[in-house]
Parts: sequence; structure tokens; C-alpha cells
Amino acid sequence: MHKLRLTFFMIAILAFSLSSQAKKYDSPLMPIPESIKFTEDSFELTEILSVGFSGFTSERLVFNANRFVDRLAGRTGLFFKQGIINQESNSDTSNIIINVDREGKLLPGEDESYSITISEKQVKLRAVTDIGAARGLETILQLLTVENGKYIFPGCEVQDSPRFVWRGLLIDVCRHFMPIEMIKRNLRGLAAVKMNVVHLHLSEDQGFRVESKKYPKLTGMGSDSLFYTQEQVKDIVEYASLLGIRVIPEFDIPGHATSWLVGYPELGSKEQEYSIERTWGVFDATLNPTKERTYEFLDTLFTEMSVLFPDEYFHIGGDENSGKHWDENSEIQSFMLDNNIKDNHALQAYFNQRVLKILTKNNKKMIGWDEIQHENMPRNIVIQSWRGKSGLEKAAKDGFQVILSNGYYIDLIHPAEEHYLNDPLPADIALTEEEQKRVLGGEATMWAEFVNNETVDSRIWPRTAAIAERLWSKKLNNNIPDMYSRLEKVSRSLEELGITHIKNRDMLLRGLSSNNVEHVKILSDVLEPLKGYRRGRYKPYTQQSPLTRMVDASIPDAPGALKFRLLVDDLKSDKISNEILSLLEMWSGNNKILTKVIDNNPILEEIRIHSKNLSLISGELLRIIRGEITVNDSEIESLIENARVNDGQVELKILEPAQKILEYLK
Amino acid sequence: MHKLRLTFFMIAILAFSLSSQAKKYDSPLMPIPESIKFTEDSFELTEILSVGFSGFTSERLVFNANRFVDRLAGRTGLFFKQGIINQESNSDTSNIIINVDREGKLLPGEDESYSITISEKQVKLRAVTDIGAARGLETILQLLTVENGKYIFPGCEVQDSPRFVWRGLLIDVCRHFMPIEMIKRNLRGLAAVKMNVVHLHLSEDQGFRVESKKYPKLTGMGSDSLFYTQEQVKDIVEYASLLGIRVIPEFDIPGHATSWLVGYPELGSKEQEYSIERTWGVFDATLNPTKERTYEFLDTLFTEMSVLFPDEYFHIGGDENSGKHWDENSEIQSFMLDNNIKDNHALQAYFNQRVLKILTKNNKKMIGWDEIQHENMPRNIVIQSWRGKSGLEKAAKDGFQVILSNGYYIDLIHPAEEHYLNDPLPADIALTEEEQKRVLGGEATMWAEFVNNETVDSRIWPRTAAIAERLWSKKLNNNIPDMYSRLEKVSRSLEELGITHIKNRDMLLRGLSSNNVEHVKILSDVLEPLKGYRRGRYKPYTQQSPLTRMVDASIPDAPGALKFRLLVDDLKSDKISNEILSLLEMWSGNNKILTKVIDNNPILEEIRIHSKNLSLISGELLRIIRGEITVNDSEIESLIENARVNDGQVELKILEPAQKILEYLK
Repeated sequence: MHKLRLTFFMIAILAFSLSSQAKKYDSPLMPIPESIKFTEDSFELTEILSVGFSGFTSERLVFNANRFVDRLAGRTGLFFKQGIINQESNSDTSNIIINVDREGKLLPGEDESYSITISEKQVKLRAVTDIGAARGLETILQLLTVENGKYIFPGCEVQDSPRFVWRGLLIDVCRHFMPIEMIKRNLRGLAAVKMNVVHLHLSEDQGFRVESKKYPKLTGMGSDSLFYTQEQVKDIVEYASLLGIRVIPEFDIPGHATSWLVGYPELGSKEQEYSIERTWGVFDATLNPTKERTYEFLDTLFTEMSVLFPDEYFHIGGDENSGKHWDENSEIQSFMLDNNIKDNHALQAYFNQRVLKILTKNNKKMIGWDEIQHENMPRNIVIQSWRGKSGLEKAAKDGFQVILSNGYYIDLIHPAEEHYLNDPLPADIALTEEEQKRVLGGEATMWAEFVNNETVDSRIWPRTAAIAERLWSKKLNNNIPDMYSRLEKVSRSLEELGITHIKNRDMLLRGLSSNNVEHVKILSDVLEPLKGYRRGRYKPYTQQSPLTRMVDASIPDAPGALKFRLLVDDLKSDKISNEILSLLEMWSGNNKILTKVIDNNPILEEIRIHSKNLSLISGELLRIIRGEITVNDSEIESLIENARVNDGQVELKILEPAQKILEYLK
Repeated sequence: MHKLRLTFFMIAILAFSLSSQAKKYDSPLMPIPESIKFTEDSFELTEILSVGFSGFTSERLVFNANRFVDRLAGRTGLFFKQGIINQESNSDTSNIIINVDREGKLLPGEDESYSITISEKQVKLRAVTDIGAARGLETILQLLTVENGKYIFPGCEVQDSPRFVWRGLLIDVCRHFMPIEMIKRNLRGLAAVKMNVVHLHLSEDQGFRVESKKYPKLTGMGSDSLFYTQEQVKDIVEYASLLGIRVIPEFDIPGHATSWLVGYPELGSKEQEYSIERTWGVFDATLNPTKERTYEFLDTLFTEMSVLFPDEYFHIGGDENSGKHWDENSEIQSFMLDNNIKDNHALQAYFNQRVLKILTKNNKKMIGWDEIQHENMPRNIVIQSWRGKSGLEKAAKDGFQVILSNGYYIDLIHPAEEHYLNDPLPADIALTEEEQKRVLGGEATMWAEFVNNETVDSRIWPRTAAIAERLWSKKLNNNIPDMYSRLEKVSRSLEELGITHIKNRDMLLRGLSSNNVEHVKILSDVLEPLKGYRRGRYKPYTQQSPLTRMVDASIPDAPGALKFRLLVDDLKSDKISNEILSLLEMWSGNNKILTKVIDNNPILEEIRIHSKNLSLISGELLRIIRGEITVNDSEIESLIENARVNDGQVELKILEPAQKILEYLK
């Protein structure tokens, strides 16, 4: 058993494919640490498990130690005798000893390294900072396994530290508001996979989401009463800090600003009444960069917000300014002439320089999207690159620091492997070593046009764990089946943190089917929401549209389709495995029963065609495999072609593997 | 179809047993309204559905109208064209018309009546108050059904009003703290079943849960930082008000007060240091009723809290004062002698009279548990009766108003039917009509020793819906199978409100079984947590104990056991139905597979014996039924006897029905 473990990790770390033996080992570390060596020992968990500190202690350390023990108790059902851990819990009588030198600072580049030594008698966790210790505790939790009917930590030595210093998730709380509990549970999820930044997208055309005491109409008229009070912001920031996570606020200007102008139309570039946008897209409402009152307003607001959000970075958005209202406004045009500003991009750079002064006065560094990059901007700002790889390269070459979001747009429903393979610094990148150092890391982006508090976790998780590994672990982990296998285990463990991605999916399926989940789930397991921006094209979505349909219950990396694809990828000849046959049999019989469920639940009507196609195609495949018909005599090709439909804004995801099987059978 | 509906409701209302035909109708009203008459019409839901007001409007009305439409959209997947409803949405172009006279006041006895008329073209909701309208909207939602592949409201006329004016749920947020989101989602649940009171049990030996700006050490030292800020309390109160629900705060004194004394030991009856209690039971910490500083403290605190909680009632607890510290304190003994106070009950009455003055000054009426009843107390207080039926009768006879909680202790895991049949005014009650009027209603009580935010909903729901019907509907509904059948449907619909009782149970089972849920769920479906106070006897439970074990995943009215019992109750002869046979077959084969899951998940070790017993008993029953062995030759009786074990603090719930089958077979 111990040797197997050793083998497993060597294999995983060396990025070879997993042996079937190694899969028996059930402690899937994600992200994979820098190094891990197993020994013959096991540390058995019993009721006398107790945690103590042998060095510096802090509120953060105590908080994380208590969470650690609570989660162990939850998983094992053990009634630990220790009780609540506090700063006085020293290591003299403890068998889990945490040694830390100092408090970690919430700054990019802070020491997050840790090491773990597990022997039969003791678990030792050593870290420079309490943030490093928090990272290490998550690793120990992932090591928990069962041996001979007992819960154990396997004997081992772990050394670990991150590859990139900026590893984050953007949460859009504007298109659909996300209650504070959504932020907190996702902060716990981020901490579990060693991410260290949450980026809150706080203002948009569809809503302004933070209370300002200076400008109460921002939320009073621009939020539908859906916003965070200042007390709640403090709560979020404090909670994130305990978890070792920075909170970056984004106030998107000068575009994407409709909600500001509902209460303060005088800031706009066009004289008109504004109302909250209810649909999706790029709108024209834009702050007026030529008026001093705009800067006075921003000065007052950002000074207020700078106190509320203590991080040294402050995100000003800057993306997708349509420029239409600038072009149409003669005063703005005169201003540009008078000041020798040649185009809208230059005008936005002028605006950004004015805003930069406000931020600098408040001891903040600026961060913004690709569009804020301009030769006139100082080089201490950070560019968040969303428009493509070239943007990142250009920024780094021009001396800007940069984080990557292009390729991490998890709202677009791409498979985990695509994000996983999206390296901020791929082998072929055309950057010098010096320029590469300017690439700080990356952020997954959870835009919220098509998610709400009930469904959002199913878009964030588990794929964000794969991105977390990409940003934390060394460059060499590119084994896709291994990644998916570990991802599945991490996914389940996220439930203990309150992440709702699994349970809310089942809930939606119960709602869709009047509680007849079985067959609707079989179908949902092979359907995926349309990728990219296509979902919005086929229905007139607004902020009020229901998010309870099959497209919402369906998830990226649809599990049945993924399983099918991995099995088919594994095919070495035309010997179709029994696992593939069982899937096909299950699918071919599914429509008959699901049809009745659809009859009784009109909300499912839109996916009737997918149900039919799934059963037709898998039935026909079975006939071919069984030799009842040849590929050439069969209508299978046209069945597959006809199944490429977008009804319900979902697509059937078994078509490519089905075609691949045909290649074998031909 | 329409005739069937008519039949169904006549039958339900007349409390005859359901015909199997009637079960086809899928709009289970709960609570059952005063009267409902179906017509031949149907109102079809389409995208042009729109809600408008033809009379008074209010924030509450708009709030509930928008919720109503959002929930309809969620259930039907329809993209309604109307957009957000506001106070200007009038009825000219609407097909759902709400007519209300005035704002409802949050007082016991406020008008909550409503009537509904549904025709092919229109839904009309008429109510005196916006609270009545909110109740009516819940009824309309329950009427939603499917006809010919379309979502419809059946044509009907409904008249409805409540039997009792006080219909509530107590939530203990002290033993385990409940976050604000738990309160909010349960407020939505209460509103869905037309309850109108949430009673928050806010202080206990284990924690003080509301911020006091006057006495910050109450939460600063007595809450582990788990409490509601005043901003959050305002949020709860406002949210409840929108839903037409009163919020009654309880500060339990003079006993159950340890958490107060951690920060303010000078208020105690014994000179000592106090610390937060971590275990369960009755403790001795008691406020000192003989010191003026106690009343000064209470005066300041309750004046502060009276503003925060606007309800006219203020709950002072008063239960389970052990009296030990009073007996031991010589100063208190002298005080009693000097003031001619003959015993501790009289001393507590003295204390209560002093507290009453403070409440009266703040325009509050007092409510407290049985123990506050005393001849010296004025008759405008309300007694909450928990110790037995005689307490309620005595209070009403003595001129007190009273609400019933005895028989509604949902923390004790009794079946829904027991609570359902627990009428505050049963036919044989020995009260005059005048005295009966003093019985205002009842409250279910959710004590939190053995639940946390993850598990609590599975104790509250769906049983609280049965209590809600008991308190709302006329006296004649006592059909148990019908109640269970409607309860199951209400249960599912509660999920749309965020209630977690179904989804978190599955989550716990996934955690217990490393995601191999199927067989562990089959077992859990026939296990129930020990009833009454027995669970705490077999394990040293504390506030830190895990609540993730089988006992926590198991629920009252275990669904498999309930189904079995209802089937067996239906047996007319020794012809065992196929449904019973399938259950027995499923159970008899379950242990073989579940054993392997237990092997890999030591947290399940404690229920291995139940798994074995379930399979043994059902296997043996099958052998008897199939005639392979006679009852007399079988060891079935001793198998059943041996299965009466409490391992894991759960019990196997199929034993009585199994025995009943034997009676038939003998």
C-alpha cells in the first residue's frame, strides 16, 4: 500500500499516465505540491487528536486550525476531546503541531510556502507565515484516507510553494446579485484550492452593488436594493483575510456605468434619463471625462471605497467603452480638440490618468482590463488581459505587470482541460525572463448574465480547481485523465464548505421533473449549455428570466458525456468495452420513459428532441456494434448530423465520441 | 378532470379517505382552505401573464407579487414579458388582478383572509390586507398544475381565513448559531404555509446572539463571535414584515443565562467566573433577582432591544430555573425572608413583575414559558405552554392568554401525524367558550442541541407544514394518509425557497459513503434518529461534536419506513402486495453491498448492525411469505427483538410493520 502511494505520486508528478493500481489511492492532491515523499508510517486519527502551536500565533492561525479540526470531525465522525482551539493551545500535549514565524501580509508575493512531516505519532506543519500554514492545512485535509478501517494521514514529507503570486477568481455580482453567503462559501472554496484573490466586479450597467454613504443614490436608485452594506463589505474582507485571500474591488468606468447614472445623470456623457439595464451586452452609458465634477465625484467615492477595501490594488475596469456618447457630445469633441486628444482611446487614457491620481492619493495601485494599457500610463499598474494572448505579451513587453484572464472565462462553459492547459507562460511564449516576471498569475472570471445564487457554483466548480492547479503547481502537470480524476474528488469535498454545485443541480432536476429525477438526469448528464456567447442568441434573456431550465441544470464537462469520451479515447481497436455498451444501453432506453416525464412537465418540452436523438443514436450504434447492420447501411451519420441542434440552448455532447466509434467500426 | 378535482377537495375537506382517482390531481393545498369550489375553466399560463393592482398598493404587496411571478417563472420556465412589478402596475392590462384595501398590521388577530376567483381569462385575488393577499398568492402557487401539456391554474373559487391567530415557529439560534440566511429561507418557508410568527430564542447558556451596543460584552464574551448585528436584526425584521410574519425575540431569564454572566458576572446569583457552556442540559447560572443592578441592566438592555424588535410582544423565557444558586446564596435567602417571599417560584414571580414594568414602559406585552404563570401576574401576558396539556388549560382557566408548544417539539423527531393531531383545542377540552378564546394558537419549537445550519431544515421541514395546517385550517382535517401525501408535495416545493432539507440530506449521504449513495440511502430511509431526549444519552455531545453522521442524515418520518407502514396498514388479508415484496427484496439484498461501503467509510461502522438487521429481517420475512418456512419455525421474532438497538443513536423503523405482517401470516 505504501509503495503504491509512492508510485502514484511519482507518476502524477512526472505527468505520466496513471496506472490502474495507483488509482486505489484516494488522496487526490489538487493542486499538486512541489514535492511529496511517502514513508511507511501512518498517523491514525482518534479522539485524542489535538492541535497546538509551537511558535507565533494569530487570529488567522487559530481560525484555520479550528476549521481544520471541524472538517476532520465532520468527515470522520470522531468526537475530538480537545474542544475549541485558541491562541494559548500550545504544542506540549498536541500531536498536530503548527510552527509559524509571523503574520502573513495580504500582498502579491507574500510567502505562502509550507512543509509537512507526518509520522506515526505526529503531524508537523511548518510555515513562515500563517497564510502558508492555512495552505498547508488544506493539503493535510486532502491527505486524509482510510487504511484497514481507520482514518489515517499517510506518513510523508511535503514541500510546497506557489508558481504564481496572483491566483484569483472574479465574481460578477452585478448582472445577477450574489448574496454575501455566496461570496463566503466561494471564499472557502478558493482557500481549499490555495487561491489567494477574489475580485469582486461591483458596478455595471445592471447594478451598483456597494453602499456608499457619500452617494446613497448609487444603490438607492441603481441596485434594486440588492447590494452589500458597508458592514457586509467589512465582513467579507475580514473573512477573506482570515482565509488568506485578498479582496480586489472593481468599479468599472468609464463604460459599463449605467447604474451610476440612474441616480447621478449629471455624470453621464449624454443628457438623458438613465434606468438600470435589464438585458445583456455593451451599452453606451459612459462617464463624462471632460467634467471636473466627474473627478470630484470619483475622488469622494474612491476615497470612501479605499478605506472599505484595504487591498493595495483597486480595479477600475475600463473595458468595452463604446465611445458612442463621446462621439455624439460636441462639448467632449471640443475638449478633445482643445487638449490635443486624438481619439477615444487617448481620451480614456486621459481619464485613467486623472483617476490614477485619485487612487495614488489613497495609496492604491491601479488595475484594469486590457483597454487601460496606454503609453502614457505609468508602469506600476496591472493589466488584466482578457482579449487574447497577444495582449498579455504586449503588456509584459511594454513594462506592465499583467495577469491572465483570457482562457479562464468559466462562464463560457468550456471544458476544464481547456482552462487547465491554458498556461500564462507557455513554453513558446516570446518573452524574456525579465518580461516573464511581470506575469503575476491569472484570474478565472465568473460573469453572471446566466447564473444566479442557485446555479453559479455549478459554473465555478469544479473547473476553478483545475485553474488553481495551473497557477499554483509547477509547469509539468498536463495529464488530462489524471486531472479529471482528481478534480472529481476535489469536487465532492467542496460540499463540506457549503459549495452548492452538486446539490443544487439535483434540486433543479427535481423541480424540472416533479421529482422523477432518474431519467432526466441521464439526459442532463450528456447535455451541455451552449458554449461561448451563443446561449443569449436564442432567447430574449433579461435579468428576470428563469434560471431553472435544463440549460441551467446542465453543466460544463457533462459527466456522462465526459465518461463516454474518455472511454472512447481509450479504445485501441474495434473491441467496444462493456462500459461503453452499458452507457449505450442506458441511453437507448432512456427516451421511452423520459417522454412521459416530459409530457407531465412542459418545462422540459424544449429538450424532447435531445432525448429522442440520444436514444436513436445510441440504439443505432448498438445495432451496428452487434452486427445487426453495417455502418454503411445505417442512417447513423444523418442521425448524428440531425442531432446538432440547439433546442433549449443545450447541445448533445456524445456526437464526437459516437463518430469516433464509427471510425473504428468502419 | 375537473370533476376529479372537485371530488378530491370535497373528500379532503370532509376528511374522508382519498380515493385513488383523486390522487391524480396534483395541486395539494396545504393548509387546506376554508372552502374551495372548482369550475370547468382553466387559466393557462403564457408569456403574457401579468400582475396588476386594482386598489391599495404597498411595498409588501409589490414584494410578494414579484416573488409570485419569479416562482411561477422558475417552475414553468416561461419568459414573462411584464418585467419587474411596481406600485404603478395597475390592473388595466393585467390578467392577474390583486385587490387590497389596506396595509396589514403585524398584530395577532390582524385580518389574513383572502378570496380567489380563477376563470379562463383572469385570476382575481381579493383581500382586506396585503398580508391576506400574501397568503392568497401562496394558495394560487399551490394550485399550479399541468393539463394537456400546459401549465394552468384550475378554475375555482376559494374563500379562506385562519382558525388561530398565532401560528409560529421557534428557532433556537443559541445551542448552534444559525446564520441570517437560515432565518431568511425559513421565513420564506413559513410564509409558504401561511404561518405568521417566528420566535427567535436569542440567549442561552451556550450563547448570546444579538449585538447590544449598550452591553458589548454580551456578545463580545458570550457568543464566540456568532451573533446578529443590529443591522442584521433590522434586516430580519424587515424581511419578515414583507412576508407578513411577526418576529418575537426571546431573552431567556433568569435561568439559562450563563452567556450573560461571562461578560457580566456581577449579575449572577453566585460569585464566580462564568464561561460559555459547551454541553446540553439545565445549568445553574441565574440572574440575581435581589439586586437593583440586575434591573438597571435589564432596563437598559430591553429598552435597546425593544426598539430593535418592533413586535408588541417580548419573550422573557422563564423556564427551567434550577434555583440552586438562589438556595445557596445567603443574601438571596435573607431577601426572601425580609420580603415574605415563600419559595423560588414566588421569587421568580417577583422578578417577572419587575421585568414586566420594564417591558410595559417600552410598550411591550410579556410572553414567557409555563413557569411565568403566577397568581400575581397580570392577565395581559401570554403563556407559552410546553410542559403539557394541563398547563394550557390551567392558564386559560386562570385568565391568561396562551399558545401551545407542547406536542409541537419538532426537535424530538416524532412523526408528523403526532404533531398534526395535536389540536390546541381538542373536542374534549375542559374549557368554556370564553376560556377557549384565550388559546391564541401554537408554535413549533426547533431546539438546536443536535442541529446546525446544514441539518436544521431537515428537522423543521416538512413537518412544520403539518403543524401549520393544524393551526390554520378548520378542525376537521384528520386524514393521515392524505396529510402525508400532500406533505410530500409541499416538501418538494419548499426547495424553490432555498429550504435545504432534501438537498443537504443527499449531501451528507455522499459524504458518509465517498459518493456511493445508493445503498446507504436505502438504509437511511428506514432509520430514524432516537426520539425524545435519548440521543444525548449515548454520546458525550458538545457544541463541537460533528453533525455529519448517519443520525444527522436520517430524518423523522423516514420515507422508506413510512411507505412500508402505510402499505402494511392497508393490508386487508395475508395477500402481501407487490409493493411490499419489492421493498423487502430491496432491503434483503442491501447489506451485501453496503458492507463494502462501510468497510471503506469507518464513519459508517456504527450502523453496520442496522444494515445487517434490516437485511436479515426482510430476508426472513420473504422466506415466510414465499412459504419456505413457517412463522413458528422461523427465528423472525428474535431477529426483530435483536434489532431493537440504538447504535449510532438511530433506530430501525420497520420493526412494528414487520411484526404486523407476521400477525397476518400466522
